[in-house]
Amino acid sequence: MLLSIIKDYSLWEDGLKKINWARRFMPILNQIRKEYEDKKPLKGLNIAISVHLEAKTANLALLLKDLGSNVFVTGSNPLSTQDDVASALVHEGIEVFAIRGVDTSEYFSHLEKTLENDIDLIIDDGGDLTYLLHTKREDLGDRIIGGCEETTTGVIRLRALEREGKLKFPMIAVNNAYCKHLFDNRIGTGQSTWDGIMRTTNITVAGKYVVVAGYGFCGKGIAKRAQGLGAKVIVSEVDPIKALEAYMDGFEVMKMQDAAKIGDIFVTATGCKDVIRYEHILQMKDGAILCNSGHFNVEIDIATLEKKAVKKYEARKNIQGYLLENGKEVFVIAEGRLVNLAAADGHPIEIMDMSFAIQALSSIYVVQNHRQLEKKVYNVPEEIDRFVAEVKLRSLGIEIDRLTPEQEKYLESWEV
Amino acid sequence: MLLSIIKDYSLWEDGLKKINWARRFMPILNQIRKEYEDKKPLKGLNIAISVHLEAKTANLALLLKDLGSNVFVTGSNPLSTQDDVASALVHEGIEVFAIRGVDTSEYFSHLEKTLENDIDLIIDDGGDLTYLLHTKREDLGDRIIGGCEETTTGVIRLRALEREGKLKFPMIAVNNAYCKHLFDNRIGTGQSTWDGIMRTTNITVAGKYVVVAGYGFCGKGIAKRAQGLGAKVIVSEVDPIKALEAYMDGFEVMKMQDAAKIGDIFVTATGCKDVIRYEHILQMKDGAILCNSGHFNVEIDIATLEKKAVKKYEARKNIQGYLLENGKEVFVIAEGRLVNLAAADGHPIEIMDMSFAIQALSSIYVVQNHRQLEKKVYNVPEEIDRFVAEVKLRSLGIEIDRLTPEQEKYLESWEV
Amino acid sequence: MLLSIIKDYSLWEDGLKKINWARRFMPILNQIRKEYEDKKPLKGLNIAISVHLEAKTANLALLLKDLGSNVFVTGSNPLSTQDDVASALVHEGIEVFAIRGVDTSEYFSHLEKTLENDIDLIIDDGGDLTYLLHTKREDLGDRIIGGCEETTTGVIRLRALEREGKLKFPMIAVNNAYCKHLFDNRIGTGQSTWDGIMRTTNITVAGKYVVVAGYGFCGKGIAKRAQGLGAKVIVSEVDPIKALEAYMDGFEVMKMQDAAKIGDIFVTATGCKDVIRYEHILQMKDGAILCNSGHFNVEIDIATLEKKAVKKYEARKNIQGYLLENGKEVFVIAEGRLVNLAAADGHPIEIMDMSFAIQALSSIYVVQNHRQLEKKVYNVPEEIDRFVAEVKLRSLGIEIDRLTPEQEKYLESWEV
Amino acid sequence: MLLSIIKDYSLWEDGLKKINWARRFMPILNQIRKEYEDKKPLKGLNIAISVHLEAKTANLALLLKDLGSNVFVTGSNPLSTQDDVASALVHEGIEVFAIRGVDTSEYFSHLEKTLENDIDLIIDDGGDLTYLLHTKREDLGDRIIGGCEETTTGVIRLRALEREGKLKFPMIAVNNAYCKHLFDNRIGTGQSTWDGIMRTTNITVAGKYVVVAGYGFCGKGIAKRAQGLGAKVIVSEVDPIKALEAYMDGFEVMKMQDAAKIGDIFVTATGCKDVIRYEHILQMKDGAILCNSGHFNVEIDIATLEKKAVKKYEARKNIQGYLLENGKEVFVIAEGRLVNLAAADGHPIEIMDMSFAIQALSSIYVVQNHRQLEKKVYNVPEEIDRFVAEVKLRSLGIEIDRLTPEQEKYLESWEV
Repeated sequence: MLLSIIKDYSLWEDGLKKINWARRFMPILNQIRKEYEDKKPLKGLNIAISVHLEAKTANLALLLKDLGSNVFVTGSNPLSTQDDVASALVHEGIEVFAIRGVDTSEYFSHLEKTLENDIDLIIDDGGDLTYLLHTKREDLGDRIIGGCEETTTGVIRLRALEREGKLKFPMIAVNNAYCKHLFDNRIGTGQSTWDGIMRTTNITVAGKYVVVAGYGFCGKGIAKRAQGLGAKVIVSEVDPIKALEAYMDGFEVMKMQDAAKIGDIFVTATGCKDVIRYEHILQMKDGAILCNSGHFNVEIDIATLEKKAVKKYEARKNIQGYLLENGKEVFVIAEGRLVNLAAADGHPIEIMDMSFAIQALSSIYVVQNHRQLEKKVYNVPEEIDRFVAEVKLRSLGIEIDRLTPEQEKYLESWEV
Repeated sequence: MLLSIIKDYSLWEDGLKKINWARRFMPILNQIRKEYEDKKPLKGLNIAISVHLEAKTANLALLLKDLGSNVFVTGSNPLSTQDDVASALVHEGIEVFAIRGVDTSEYFSHLEKTLENDIDLIIDDGGDLTYLLHTKREDLGDRIIGGCEETTTGVIRLRALEREGKLKFPMIAVNNAYCKHLFDNRIGTGQSTWDGIMRTTNITVAGKYVVVAGYGFCGKGIAKRAQGLGAKVIVSEVDPIKALEAYMDGFEVMKMQDAAKIGDIFVTATGCKDVIRYEHILQMKDGAILCNSGHFNVEIDIATLEKKAVKKYEARKNIQGYLLENGKEVFVIAEGRLVNLAAADGHPIEIMDMSFAIQALSSIYVVQNHRQLEKKVYNVPEEIDRFVAEVKLRSLGIEIDRLTPEQEKYLESWEV
Repeated sequence: MLLSIIKDYSLWEDGLKKINWARRFMPILNQIRKEYEDKKPLKGLNIAISVHLEAKTANLALLLKDLGSNVFVTGSNPLSTQDDVASALVHEGIEVFAIRGVDTSEYFSHLEKTLENDIDLIIDDGGDLTYLLHTKREDLGDRIIGGCEETTTGVIRLRALEREGKLKFPMIAVNNAYCKHLFDNRIGTGQSTWDGIMRTTNITVAGKYVVVAGYGFCGKGIAKRAQGLGAKVIVSEVDPIKALEAYMDGFEVMKMQDAAKIGDIFVTATGCKDVIRYEHILQMKDGAILCNSGHFNVEIDIATLEKKAVKKYEARKNIQGYLLENGKEVFVIAEGRLVNLAAADGHPIEIMDMSFAIQALSSIYVVQNHRQLEKKVYNVPEEIDRFVAEVKLRSLGIEIDRLTPEQEKYLESWEV
Repeated sequence: MLLSIIKDYSLWEDGLKKINWARRFMPILNQIRKEYEDKKPLKGLNIAISVHLEAKTANLALLLKDLGSNVFVTGSNPLSTQDDVASALVHEGIEVFAIRGVDTSEYFSHLEKTLENDIDLIIDDGGDLTYLLHTKREDLGDRIIGGCEETTTGVIRLRALEREGKLKFPMIAVNNAYCKHLFDNRIGTGQSTWDGIMRTTNITVAGKYVVVAGYGFCGKGIAKRAQGLGAKVIVSEVDPIKALEAYMDGFEVMKMQDAAKIGDIFVTATGCKDVIRYEHILQMKDGAILCNSGHFNVEIDIATLEKKAVKKYEARKNIQGYLLENGKEVFVIAEGRLVNLAAADGHPIEIMDMSFAIQALSSIYVVQNHRQLEKKVYNVPEEIDRFVAEVKLRSLGIEIDRLTPEQEKYLESWEV
């Protein structure tokens, strides 16, 4: 608390309530605590975590502390930090550097503060900690034995670093674990995107034309839930195989410039920039609603929209109305930031339980194996993925079949 | 504003913003205004409206005013009133008697205040205005030429009054219109129930066992959306035909006492009381979540739960945690009140546009035909239903086929 | 067997196998047999049945015989009769007048033969028996105390007769029973239409544009199953409320002339004629596939197509290819007759068990109440509907809740 | 035709009709023909194909011939061969060795006959050609430069051979291509499995408990379509991650021994043997229906069932009824062979167009690159996958977006 930079410590009680509620729905983290609490596998390590700072990530931070480490937390997005949860973490003895709604420069200063604590291991979300450690704050990376990265976006950045031979420590691509992307990206983003859109707009999803840009795991989840809510889904893609997959899944597929004229609601989930451009926005129907589920707020070209719009106003809480030069209005939710975090409470709890279990176990893995690891991007070891799935199934009371010895032999053999 | 009883007039600007946002998505009310504004078909009438007082109902009130009437608004549920919208209505020259969160006695006093204005016509939601006019405040009913009732629950009460020969004026059962129950009860309740549950709990719907009590139009919508969100749905019913319909729609069907042991989330939508009883709650899994989408908060027997629980606490905002004598905890959302209104923003806007268009047109119908109407419950005239559908389709740019003269003749004929 | 007109008696064994297989999945008919076999409520009556003559209807005929009547069976469509099942019925002592594939004049002669047996009661399917009894063979109607009609189409014809005051005996509109149209029209037509299309064409449904003409209960089922198979559904309608329902259910809605250009597969289910006309067909894509799920083969204007097409050939078994004057080809399944019967085995068994249970019980009802019945079209008595649902639920092992006395009282009351 | 061993040459006309119908829905094969017909990339090669011999595979064989090779065709399963199509291929100048319904020894003799033609390249389906070439008929493998394998099952066998260092030539694992398993296994198996079950049984899918064994791509497709048809789906799995995926997709997950008691219809799709064992069958409800969608008929332990059953009879065409010692009956479709091929027409055409396009292009790839290829199992080159998707999209008239240079740069970069 001497170090922490937070909004208002007195909010801690509300934050703790949220943390405790979330804990109820995190059986895997609870099981890891149970199994490792005494062994303290992270003993004495200083861990920097960059996360969407709310009740679920708070549970990850608290677990890492319970496994023996000193935890330093920062937000991974200035709009997703919840100040009461930040306070609760401080109350529980964790250093936090995060305030909701700060500007980019203050945001990065918080990241630096977090890294200025003799950090041994990082848990990154989107790659900003990693970015700092490879640019401005190269000085802070000497002790670092490795880390984990949560998102698709972050992994793309790590691969670029690796390709250029610049990566300074081994990183585990948590996003590539099955128990992460199958559920977090697909089920988590699918639900929370629509939670965010519905609560922010109060409009009817049924019957609407929903345009989903990108048909990766996030886009698949968003499209499926849109259909589950009664919408007609149009997908735009740059990859022909994913485009065909969307078609075969029963969705319309077309270029954004064609979809722009039809859509009622647009959601981007590509990991790329300028997916919805001003030229597309000019084609849209009066009253079109735009939002983004990708990590960075670059998928909709808000900058150009801001510059060209005749008028901007708050149409409803967290909805920006833009009057265009052609007389039509479009609405952007949460300034194009991740709609599920900036306009809702992020992914649902049980999903993050899985993702964070992989984070925690991958951290332990890095600690135990860092001597053998090269300065590369690694996939999550299969046994961690499997362990997480098994604990989750057990927590649900689900038992599954096991191969008999005869079956195992059959699967190994090539003879009839 | 001399009469109005509201929380805080200064909130009007926020309320107006919400009203204007909603208006954008209400093409049918806007069309009715356009067609009738000059004719003033409600000229000089005093209309009492009991509604879930928020942005959408505010648009109905404003339309009725624009059609010539003096409008007096009260809330139909103390927990669904939005104080800023109430203020905005006052700002627009409508008298309002509603404050969020008042107790039952104050709630009824607001209803009485509303009726004490030489009312000619009522628009009721759940039947409380009608109830007062047939009991304590019979004195206020003399001028009343008729009215409209919005909900299933209210219509059930009206039918009971009619059966006993006590109904004092003609009432239009708005709920029975196709453009009401097909969309409001099914699509509206379906979406908004899950909006409320998701935003209040932040839990994952996918994979969960969702128990839906009642398979009327509301229950159908809730079940379908639950499946669309990835849940496994169990339906409880008392009507064998509806039970069979649920089975054929792909859902599990069982008694509540059996479903109680399996469910993760329970939603009631029956119009009946004590559908989830304490005996059921005792059977539930630790951590079960209960909520209600029916009009009155009687479907879950909260009273007994309150009495028998060992401990009650706020588990998360708007979630009451109950520790049971058997050591398990259950959670109730919004004290068992309508989850879509008490924990979200009610039905989505476009849906209410249809329902309120029927309200407005039925009101005009009552005014123009009250001399021929008996003291009975009437269905909405078919041409109103049809008109609403046609305007809505037109607003969507949808054109449909027309029967050719040959086809019309074919459909009239019994010969080959 | 002296009277019967069938294709080939020696086929009876195959027919009997089919009948026995179907019986396994008809728990309600089996239960009715059990309850009524000793009482013989149809004792001594001569019953004429016009049905799609296959294994399921055969079970209805056999039940009526077991309840004491003499049964005379004819087909309701020359293309749906299965000759082996006809033989099996003869083998079981029932008179049958039906041969697959006969022309219209022979078809009607079979209907007449059936009626020439001092008939007391008719069970009609589409209204052809009724039609004969009100035109050419008025002479045969004197003994008739009433009957039942199975289809929407037949009920439309009955209502026309009733309106003109010409109906000669009371008829029960079996189609209007909940346990008929909720399941037969929606679930039955939904599944069997796609069974017929898939087995006849071997094409992929996923990704296709499917145009469904008509959004009644049949159209709803066809659309829902198309979506369940991965298709994109477009609905055409003449009724604005049904059109809006289709829109809110997540489907495209447009005029047939617009849908014609987009669709890959067209299915009609309107009960009307000339729904797909030559002008539409000319607009279609090369390779479009057309079929009909309505009762009569008039929904697609095959006559004009035959006249105008440059060439006609068998493209695959039961598929007619037409080369159009514009150089494109379109394909019609089973000459535009009911695709589920002419290209598959009709509705699935369990569904017809419900429909035929209503037929059987309505027949008993007519026998027991014919003195009080007027020459009108009657709905199925509620208790029959309820009984069928209850027996079906019981056969599935499903128990449902019952209202408590307090709940019943609550539902009767209008006070808070 | 001198060599060919077929049932009856005179059937060729019917076969040709089927082949022509299929060709209409195979735009990718047609495009490959167009692009390569003149270049004759397979000129002078002798190719042995083992396939489910019907209209779609016939189009692959004809394409390979048009690209310059001499084609020798055999069936990959004695029950899936269509004799009329075999005749049509002979009529078109291809040698065929396949007769429907032959026993295992004759089946293998046909495979040998096919291989006895100085074969240069094989196209295998399930691995039986490969098996012969590594055992009994090692003598015939000397000229072989490589080949392609279609199925999951075959690839598993190839990997086993490769692991043991015994694989004698390079093989392309066609199954691993995205345009194969995403569509063939998921969409193709999903649709055709239910086509087979529905047409064979005529029972209602809606409301039924469907047990799907295996949640790979095939199982996923079967489960999804079952839900689309209104069933309740239960999944059994041995892999915890797949089990969790099934749970999150909204399905029940349990051990087969538990599912056995609940299921109405059982479908296996695991690639493993003895997945449904006699101990499971004894637990099943009277009237349970079993079938298999995996490559080999070993997934249900039919052998033990045959031995232990009290009685076996044909319950309906292609359905075997077994009376068990416990007095209950179960029904097996098509003797437990692939239900979509043995009881329907296999995968829908457009799906196989994709799979076979990959086969054809992979064959060309082997021819052009065999000198560089080792005796290993290779994945399909990415550019083939991409090409197939692009041609398919073009044939559908679908255009997709392309990355701008700025976007490509963004995706390569790790800086903000």
